[in-house]
Amino acid sequence: MTLPASWLPVASDSDFSVHNLPFGVFSTGLEQPRVGVAIGDFIIDMSTAAQLGVMSEAGVAVSVFQHPTLNPLMSLGRPAARRIREILQRQLTQTDSFLHKLAAEVLVPQAIAQLHLPVAIGDYTDFYSSLEHATQVGQLFRPNNPLLPNWKHLPVAYHGRSSSIVVSGTPINRPNGQVLPMGAEVPIFQPTQALDYELELGFVIGKNSKLGVPVSVEEAEEYIFGCVLFNDWSARDIQRWEYQPLGPFLSKNFASSLSPWVVTLDALETFRVAGPEQNPEPLPYLRTSGALNFDLNLEVAIKPQDVSETVVCRTSARYVYWNIRQQLAHHTVSGCNLRVGDLLATGTISGPDGSGCLLELTEGGKKPIRLTDGTERTYLQHGDEVIMRGHAGRGDVRVGFGEVRGSILDSPESEN
Amino acid sequence: MTLPASWLPVASDSDFSVHNLPFGVFSTGLEQPRVGVAIGDFIIDMSTAAQLGVMSEAGVAVSVFQHPTLNPLMSLGRPAARRIREILQRQLTQTDSFLHKLAAEVLVPQAIAQLHLPVAIGDYTDFYSSLEHATQVGQLFRPNNPLLPNWKHLPVAYHGRSSSIVVSGTPINRPNGQVLPMGAEVPIFQPTQALDYELELGFVIGKNSKLGVPVSVEEAEEYIFGCVLFNDWSARDIQRWEYQPLGPFLSKNFASSLSPWVVTLDALETFRVAGPEQNPEPLPYLRTSGALNFDLNLEVAIKPQDVSETVVCRTSARYVYWNIRQQLAHHTVSGCNLRVGDLLATGTISGPDGSGCLLELTEGGKKPIRLTDGTERTYLQHGDEVIMRGHAGRGDVRVGFGEVRGSILDSPESEN
Repeated sequence: MTLPASWLPVASDSDFSVHNLPFGVFSTGLEQPRVGVAIGDFIIDMSTAAQLGVMSEAGVAVSVFQHPTLNPLMSLGRPAARRIREILQRQLTQTDSFLHKLAAEVLVPQAIAQLHLPVAIGDYTDFYSSLEHATQVGQLFRPNNPLLPNWKHLPVAYHGRSSSIVVSGTPINRPNGQVLPMGAEVPIFQPTQALDYELELGFVIGKNSKLGVPVSVEEAEEYIFGCVLFNDWSARDIQRWEYQPLGPFLSKNFASSLSPWVVTLDALETFRVAGPEQNPEPLPYLRTSGALNFDLNLEVAIKPQDVSETVVCRTSARYVYWNIRQQLAHHTVSGCNLRVGDLLATGTISGPDGSGCLLELTEGGKKPIRLTDGTERTYLQHGDEVIMRGHAGRGDVRVGFGEVRGSILDSPESEN
Repeated sequence: MTLPASWLPVASDSDFSVHNLPFGVFSTGLEQPRVGVAIGDFIIDMSTAAQLGVMSEAGVAVSVFQHPTLNPLMSLGRPAARRIREILQRQLTQTDSFLHKLAAEVLVPQAIAQLHLPVAIGDYTDFYSSLEHATQVGQLFRPNNPLLPNWKHLPVAYHGRSSSIVVSGTPINRPNGQVLPMGAEVPIFQPTQALDYELELGFVIGKNSKLGVPVSVEEAEEYIFGCVLFNDWSARDIQRWEYQPLGPFLSKNFASSLSPWVVTLDALETFRVAGPEQNPEPLPYLRTSGALNFDLNLEVAIKPQDVSETVVCRTSARYVYWNIRQQLAHHTVSGCNLRVGDLLATGTISGPDGSGCLLELTEGGKKPIRLTDGTERTYLQHGDEVIMRGHAGRGDVRVGFGEVRGSILDSPESEN
C-alpha cells in the first residue's frame, strides 16, 4: 500500500483508485464487448493495451482480453490476474511508462462506455450467512422458531437462478405470482405487492474444482477471482406462499443485479478484519481463524423517480457470520464441484447498525419507512431505483465496487 | 405411426426403433465427441452423414453436428429437429436411400462408442410434481403436515446444481456431510448413511425465452427439445438436517445422472395420456386440458456388485400430477427466462403402483427391502449400481430412453 499516486488524476472519493483496478467488460459504439480495467473515471481498454504490447510481460494471450466475458481471463488463475494488476499499477504510477505514452489510445471515459455482465455465470449459489438477517427474517416468517437449529452449525445455502442475473442498470420487471391473501385459504395471482431488494456480496469463482474432491478452508480463496455487489431482488408475498418445503423459487428467480466491476481479492487484502465470534465452534472442516472478513462499508439508497435518493441502510460486510472460506468449503464438502464463472453470494447482509432489505426495515411491511421526499415505503414502487454501493477505506487508500442499480418497472410486457 | 420397418434390423425390444431416433453425443477412439442418433444397436454418425450430404435437405449447417453438445442443434428449434428425424426415418426405411448406400461409413456400433453428457446444461430446476411422492415423503419429514397447503395450487420446485450433472455410467462418490444423529442436538460429520436415488424425467429446453415475458401453457412445448431419464441422487440424512428453511443443498448437489439419449417430444407424441384429475382447479395460468402426460413405463433396478439386478420399482410417468406445460408456465410466470440447455426435471416419480426412491420404499430407512441375492437394503451400499429404464409401447411400436446407470463408490479420494 505504498504505491505513489497515478499520473492519471483519480478523485480521492473514487472507488477505482490505483489500489483497486477491478476487471469488467465494456463496449463503445458498435464495437464488441471486451475486457477493461477501471481507473478513476476511465477504463483501460485491455484489448487495445494488450495488442499494443503493454501487457507483454504478463505472459497472457491477447485473446483473453478480446472476449465478451472475464471467464477466459479468470481461468488463468489468480496469479495471472495478480501479474496484470501489478503491471498496470507500475505503468499507472510511472510517468515514463508505455501505458502513459499510449494513454490516448487505451483510456476510454466511463461516461461513453456501456458496461456488460462481466461473467458468464454457471451455477449461482446464495448463502444465508448474516446472523442478524437470519434472525430478523426468521422472526417474521416463523415467530416461534426464528433461528433454526442448523444455522450456527453450517452456512445455510440454496441454489439460485443464473439465467436472470443482469448487469447494473437493467430495469427490473415487477413479477407476477401466486400469493395467499391474509386469512385466505386459496391463493390469488397478481403482481407482487412486496417487492424487495437484498444487499449482498457475490464471490466469483475463478478456478475449477474436481467433482468428488472437497476444497478445504485453507485452499478456498485460491478458487475465488474476485468480488461484486449483488442485489438479489425478492418478492416477499410470493416467497411466503411458495417457499415450503423446498425453498424460494419464483420469489427470487425473476432477476438479480450484479455490479459491473469485479474487485480482486488481492485489492481487498488490506481491509481484512475478524468476523463475529462463532459459538458453538464449527465442525473441523469449517474451522478458520484470523482476520478473514472484509471491512467493506455498504449502503443502500432508494431513489424514487425524479427526486433525490434516500440512504436507507448503512452497514458493513464485517458482520457476516460465515466467511467465504467457510462457505466455499461447505459448498464442496459433499464433493460438489465448482466451475469458473460460478457465483457464491453471501445472502442479505444486515448488521447491528443496518438492515439489508425492506422486509427487515419495515418489519414485514408493517412499519413504513419515510423517504426524504416525504413519501413512505413498505416495499418498492414503480419507478423506484435501488442503488447499492460498497467501498473500503484506510487512510488515503480507497477501494470500492462502484454501484449496482436497478429501477422497478410495473406492467411488464406480458403479451406473450 | 405407419412407418415401414427399417432396412437396418432393430430388435423388437429395442428402445431405439425407427419411431424414436433420439439425439446424443458420442465419440470413438481418439476422435472428438460429435452428434449421433441412436437406431437399434447402432449410432448414426450425424457429422459424417451431414458431411457426405445425407442431411442436405434439412437445411442445417454441418457444424451443428460436429459440436460436442446438442446445444447448437437444439437452438435451431423443434422444426429443424423434426425435419432431421423425418429425413432419417425416410432414409432408414427406403432401401435405395443415400443413407443405406453409405451405411458402412455412417453407422457406428454402440458397443464401441463412448457416450457423453449430451447437453451443456445451464440452469437445472427440479420440480416436486408427483402427488404420491410428495405425500409419502411429507409423511416421513413432517408426520403432522405431509402435503403442504401450496402443493395442489402450484408446481413446487427449486433450483438444483448443474455442475455436478454427469452422464450415465459415471461412478457416484458417496458424499460426506453434516447429519444430526437421532436424539442428538449437535451434528456430526460423516459419509452419508442414507444414500438414495430419485427416479425422474428431465425436459431439455431448446429455445430461449425472454426475461420478463412469461411463456403460456399453450406455448410451453415449443420450448422443449426433448426428454431424458434422470437420477437425482440424494443423501437423506444430510437433507433432513440442512433443508430448512431454504431447501436441499449438499444433500442433492454432489451428483445427478442423465441418460445419454435425448428423446424428442415428437417421438413421444403418440403416447400421450391424460394426467390425474386436478382438484382444486388450478389458477388460469396453469389450466390445461386433454392428454398431456406421457404413458412411459419406468423401472428402477438395484444391482449389487457381481450379482444380478433386482427391479425395485415399476411405475409410469402418467401419474405425474403437474404436467410439463404447467411446470414450464409456472417457472416463467415470474418473468424468469429459459435458455437453450436448461433442464427441468419432474422430481421423483412415484405412482399408486411403485415408489421412485428408497426413502419411500423403506419408509425412511425403517423397513429394508430384500434383493434377489438375499441381501437387504435400506439405502445404497458400496458397489451398488442403480439402473433406471423407461419406454413407451403401443402395438409393435416401441420408443424408449435406454438406461441411466450409476454405481456407488465409497471412500472417495478426498486427499485434496
